[in-house]
Amino acid sequence: MRAYDLIYKKRNGGRLNREEIQFFVSGFTDGSITDYQASAFLMAAFIRGMDATETSILTETMRDSGDCLDLSSVPGVKVDKHSTGGVGDGISLVLAPLVAACGVPVPMMSGRGLGHTGGTLDKLESIPGFTTNISEAQAVAQLKQIGCVMMGQTSRLAPADKKMYALRDVTATVDCVPLIAASILSKKLAEGCDGLVLDVKTGSGAFMQEKKQAVALAQSMVAIGKKCRKKMVALITDMNEPLGKAVGNALEVKQALEILAGKEDHATQSYVSLTETLGAWMLVLGGKARVHKEGVEKISSARKNGAGLKKFQELVSAQGGDSTFCADPDRFLPRAPMVKQILSPWKGFVASLNARSVGVASVLLGAGREKQDSPVDLSAGIVLHKKLGGKVERGESLAEFHYSDEKKCGDAERAFMAGVKIAKIKPRLNPLIYKIIR
Amino acid sequence: MRAYDLIYKKRNGGRLNREEIQFFVSGFTDGSITDYQASAFLMAAFIRGMDATETSILTETMRDSGDCLDLSSVPGVKVDKHSTGGVGDGISLVLAPLVAACGVPVPMMSGRGLGHTGGTLDKLESIPGFTTNISEAQAVAQLKQIGCVMMGQTSRLAPADKKMYALRDVTATVDCVPLIAASILSKKLAEGCDGLVLDVKTGSGAFMQEKKQAVALAQSMVAIGKKCRKKMVALITDMNEPLGKAVGNALEVKQALEILAGKEDHATQSYVSLTETLGAWMLVLGGKARVHKEGVEKISSARKNGAGLKKFQELVSAQGGDSTFCADPDRFLPRAPMVKQILSPWKGFVASLNARSVGVASVLLGAGREKQDSPVDLSAGIVLHKKLGGKVERGESLAEFHYSDEKKCGDAERAFMAGVKIAKIKPRLNPLIYKIIR
Repeated sequence: MRAYDLIYKKRNGGRLNREEIQFFVSGFTDGSITDYQASAFLMAAFIRGMDATETSILTETMRDSGDCLDLSSVPGVKVDKHSTGGVGDGISLVLAPLVAACGVPVPMMSGRGLGHTGGTLDKLESIPGFTTNISEAQAVAQLKQIGCVMMGQTSRLAPADKKMYALRDVTATVDCVPLIAASILSKKLAEGCDGLVLDVKTGSGAFMQEKKQAVALAQSMVAIGKKCRKKMVALITDMNEPLGKAVGNALEVKQALEILAGKEDHATQSYVSLTETLGAWMLVLGGKARVHKEGVEKISSARKNGAGLKKFQELVSAQGGDSTFCADPDRFLPRAPMVKQILSPWKGFVASLNARSVGVASVLLGAGREKQDSPVDLSAGIVLHKKLGGKVERGESLAEFHYSDEKKCGDAERAFMAGVKIAKIKPRLNPLIYKIIR
Repeated sequence: MRAYDLIYKKRNGGRLNREEIQFFVSGFTDGSITDYQASAFLMAAFIRGMDATETSILTETMRDSGDCLDLSSVPGVKVDKHSTGGVGDGISLVLAPLVAACGVPVPMMSGRGLGHTGGTLDKLESIPGFTTNISEAQAVAQLKQIGCVMMGQTSRLAPADKKMYALRDVTATVDCVPLIAASILSKKLAEGCDGLVLDVKTGSGAFMQEKKQAVALAQSMVAIGKKCRKKMVALITDMNEPLGKAVGNALEVKQALEILAGKEDHATQSYVSLTETLGAWMLVLGGKARVHKEGVEKISSARKNGAGLKKFQELVSAQGGDSTFCADPDRFLPRAPMVKQILSPWKGFVASLNARSVGVASVLLGAGREKQDSPVDLSAGIVLHKKLGGKVERGESLAEFHYSDEKKCGDAERAFMAGVKIAKIKPRLNPLIYKIIR
C-alpha cells in the first residue's frame, strides 16, 4: 500500500477501508507519510467527505495512536463533558464540581484557548498554584478521593490528532464534520470515561456557525461514541452571544465562584440554565438521575446548598491551590490594573452582541492567544453589563474592559462595538438549547 | 496575503486573481510557502478546478518563474511541436529535420521518458557523442546556421513547474487539465518559439485516456497560447496502439533514419502519416505553406528527396555526433545482445495492441525508467511486426524483444501479451487524427 493510492482513491470520492485508514494514520504519526502527502489527503477528504464508517474507523485509529487512560479501578460511571468552544463558556468550572457533588465521577480533560475562544486550562491557571499537569496515577487517586479531576491532555494521548490538527490548522482543512468528529472523539475516547455529554455550539461565536453543520457534527459524534459503547448525549446550544457575563480567565473563575455560591442575575441566567441542563444529562448518563428533570433539581440544589462550592475548594486544594481560595478569591485572583466602561452611544434594546466580536475584543485585550505559543494575560477580559434583549440608556455602560496595556484598548473597543447593535424594539431571542441528540 | 487564504478560497470553489496566483507561485518557488500548503492547494485546485483566466495566469506566472530564451535574433517564424507523450512516439526525430529542411526554424526542447512513455532526449542520446545539453547562445547560433536544434530544458527554465510537478507526482494531482496545461505551456512559452503545434494523445497509451479530457486540454492550451500571442494548433491523435513499429531508444532512432530515407511499410504508415500532418501544420504556422495540403506535399517531398535525412546529419554533426552517422547507423547505434520473437498463440486479426501494455513491456526490458533517476538501456525495446487490424497466423511473430537481461523477459512478455487480442474478424480501426483545434 502506498500513500499515493489512498490520496488517489479519496480524491476520486472513494471509500477507504479500515486497513487503508490505519495505514494512513500510523504512517502519518510515525512520519513515513510526509506532511505534503497528508495535507493532499486531508484536502481530498475535506472536499469529498468521509462516510459514517470511515469517520468511525478514523476516530478509533487516532485514539489508538497513543496511550488510553485506564479508569476502570474508579467505581461508578465516569462522565465527561466536551464543548466545541465558545465565548465566555467557562461552564466546566462549575459543572465538574456540581456533578461530582451529586455522586458522578468527572474525569475532565481540557484544552487551552485558541483564536477567539477561551480554554479551561488557562482559566484554572489563574488560580495561583493550581496545576493541570496531572499523571494518570494521580488522576485515578483523586477521582477515587474527591470524585473529580481537571487536567490537561498528556502528550501521549492521541498523538495522531495533535499532529493532524496542527497540519489542518495551516492548510484550511479544519472546519469539516468528519475530521472534527474524529479529532474530538479520538481524544475523549482515549480518556477512559464511560459517558460523554457534548455541547455543540452554533452561532456567530461558534466554530460551526451553521446549525445544520452543528447537528451533523453532533449526530456523527453520538453515533461513533455509541459504536464504541459509550453513553452519549449531544446538545446543540446557542453561541450567538457570549455565555454568562464574564469573558477572560480570572474573570470567568470569579463568575464561577459566584454561581457556585448560589448567586445569579439577568446576565448569568443562560450560564446557570446551561449548567443545569448539561449537569442533569451527566447525572442521567452517570446513573444518578432517572430523568433529566430530576437531574436539574439535583444540580440546582447542589448549587444552592453550597455542595458544589465545597467540591470546587476540594479540587483546588487537591491540585495545588490554596485551601482558603474559595473563601476569599479576590485575595488570590490576578486583577487588571485598568478598567474601562464601554458606554452605549444610543438608547434602546441590545439587538446584537456578536459572540465572535466579544471574543476577538477579549483576545485583543490580552485574554487569549492568536497563535498557539502566545502568552496570555490571565487578568484581562470583559464583563458584560448588558445581554441580548436588555434595555439600555444612552451613556449607560454596556460592558467593562479589564486590561494592562492601554495601547490595545482602542482596537478592542472597535472590535467589540462592531458586534453591538442597539434597536428601538426589543428583539426576539434565540432559545438557549436548539436540539438534543441521543 | 497568506497561503492559508488562497487554500481556503480555492477549497470553497473561489476564483483566484492574478495577485493571488503570483503570490502562490513565487512563494512556492522560493520556499516561503511550504510543500504541505502547496499540496493542499493543488488538491483543492484539482477537485474544484481553475477557469480559463486562472489557468492562463498560472501559466504566465510559472513561465516567468525563471529564464525565458530570447530567439528574436533568429530570422523567421520559429515553430516547435509538443506531444503529451505516447508509446513509440519518436516523431520529433524526423519532424525537426523535415520542417527545418522546408525553411521553418525549429527550436525543439524535449524531456526524458517517464513511466510507460519514452522521451526524445533518451532517444537522441543513443547516438554516440550526441549532446542535448545546449546553451542559449549555442542554440541561437545553431538555429541560424542549420535551422534546427534539439535540446533539453535548462534548469533555469520554469523552475516553478519543475518543483510543482515533482509535488503533484507524489500527491495524485497530475491528471488535471488546468494543471497540465499550465505545466506544458509554461515551459513551451519560455522557449521563445513563435508557434506551437500540439499533439494531444488519447487512448490506452496516453495520459489523457478519455477523448473528452484530451479535447479540453487541447482547447485550454490553444486558448492560453493565443492569449500570449503564439500561433497555435492542436491535434487530438490516437494512442490506443503504439505509433510506428519501434518502441525503445536506439530502435526508434533506427526507424527514424529509415523514414527519413523515404522508406515505409504497413507498420510505419501511421508514423509517416502523423509526421506529414504535424509537419504540415508547422509549415502553415511558420508561413512556409499556405494551406495544410501544401504543407503535406512539402514534408513528403523533403522526406522522399533526402533533404530531411541531410538535415538530420547536419543536426547530429552540430551536436557532437559522427559526421558519417546517417550513412551507416548500425556501426554507431547500440544493439541489444538478445532478441526474442514473440509468437502469436492464435490465428486471426490483431484486435488490440494496447499501447500502455507495450510501453510497460518495453520499460520492463530496460528501455525506460520507472523512477526519475533509474538508468536506461538504450539498446532495449520492442519492434512490432503486426499492428492493429493485421492478419496473423498461429506461431507467426507479433513482435521482437531486444534486451540485455534475460530475467526481465518473462515479465515483459506477460505485460505485452496482456494487451494483445487476436480476433476472428477484422476489427474496425480508429482514425489516427480525431480533431484539429485552432
